[in-house]
Amino acid sequence: VARRGRRPGRSQTRDDILESARRSFADLGYDRATIRGIAREADVDPALVMHFFGNKERIFAEVMSLPFDAETVSARVLAGSRREIGLRLTRFFLEVWDDPVLGAGMLALVRSAASYPEAADRLRELVSANIVPLIAGSVEGRDAELRSNMVSAQLIGTAFLRYVLRVEPVASTDREALAQTLAPTIQRYLTGR
Amino acid sequence: VARRGRRPGRSQTRDDILESARRSFADLGYDRATIRGIAREADVDPALVMHFFGNKERIFAEVMSLPFDAETVSARVLAGSRREIGLRLTRFFLEVWDDPVLGAGMLALVRSAASYPEAADRLRELVSANIVPLIAGSVEGRDAELRSNMVSAQLIGTAFLRYVLRVEPVASTDREALAQTLAPTIQRYLTGR
Repeated sequence: VARRGRRPGRSQTRDDILESARRSFADLGYDRATIRGIAREADVDPALVMHFFGNKERIFAEVMSLPFDAETVSARVLAGSRREIGLRLTRFFLEVWDDPVLGAGMLALVRSAASYPEAADRLRELVSANIVPLIAGSVEGRDAELRSNMVSAQLIGTAFLRYVLRVEPVASTDREALAQTLAPTIQRYLTGR
Repeated sequence: VARRGRRPGRSQTRDDILESARRSFADLGYDRATIRGIAREADVDPALVMHFFGNKERIFAEVMSLPFDAETVSARVLAGSRREIGLRLTRFFLEVWDDPVLGAGMLALVRSAASYPEAADRLRELVSANIVPLIAGSVEGRDAELRSNMVSAQLIGTAFLRYVLRVEPVASTDREALAQTLAPTIQRYLTGR
């Protein structure tokens, strides 16, 4: 999975702090992550974290964005044979989660959303505004939004068992084997067959 | 859904404290729930909470149990026509989550497991020791454990979208309509058709 490139004009230090924040929120959730801990992980002074972001809420808002954009998903998932769209979507989702940096971003999102109402609001917004329309646009037939929700539910639930709870066997199942197991379900929600 | 009855010899006050703790952990997650807040909700002195449980960890351990037992699930889900086992399991799951008391217990489990490693360990244990074998025993063919995981993933993911994130339309879809939408997926994982 290609990560978003660094934007021009952004400093490396700011990026290092964001990456450290992403890890902290992923490991600890919003409440237990601290400015001090984020600074220590990024090997900078806490005052520098404050200089760039002001407070924990604002770092959190920066971290809480989906680590990929709609065009990337379109290019990777929507283009190509309709008969394998379920497989491509499933592979893309699992690759994002298996990537050390992107996966930490997703883990931070899910973990924080579960315990912190503002993060839940943010993730609901992301799902409602980005993921539901994106997937629903590919669903044939009626109940497109509800079936789009079922796709998200199957994928997020799988991530919860594999990456948060680490339940076996799904936690250590080979990614491609897992994609093959999930794909028929995702395909049926999308195209009804 | 029939709730577990109060065990003989257990005091009403202790039960009230447990119910208040369940709500606190569901609303706030483990980290932000406090003995003081639990006591206030139960309308008792914090010293009484300490008397019964000693500390927050121990109240948490009591609350972190599945709010139903294997016999109940067997009687409700496994008995009856194999062709509708997916529908019965889905209905049972959604009824538990829609129940005010049992649902709060499930929400406490999922919310705390997402942000608190000991709660994740506890929920993983519950899923691995109770839910995977229970469901896997009903799966026909190979990969029974992995397909049991996929059943859990679809159901837990649906609960996450419906009750934690409150994404539409799944958040306000009628329970029976949602069960009918999910049941074919669950049925295919269980029986392959």
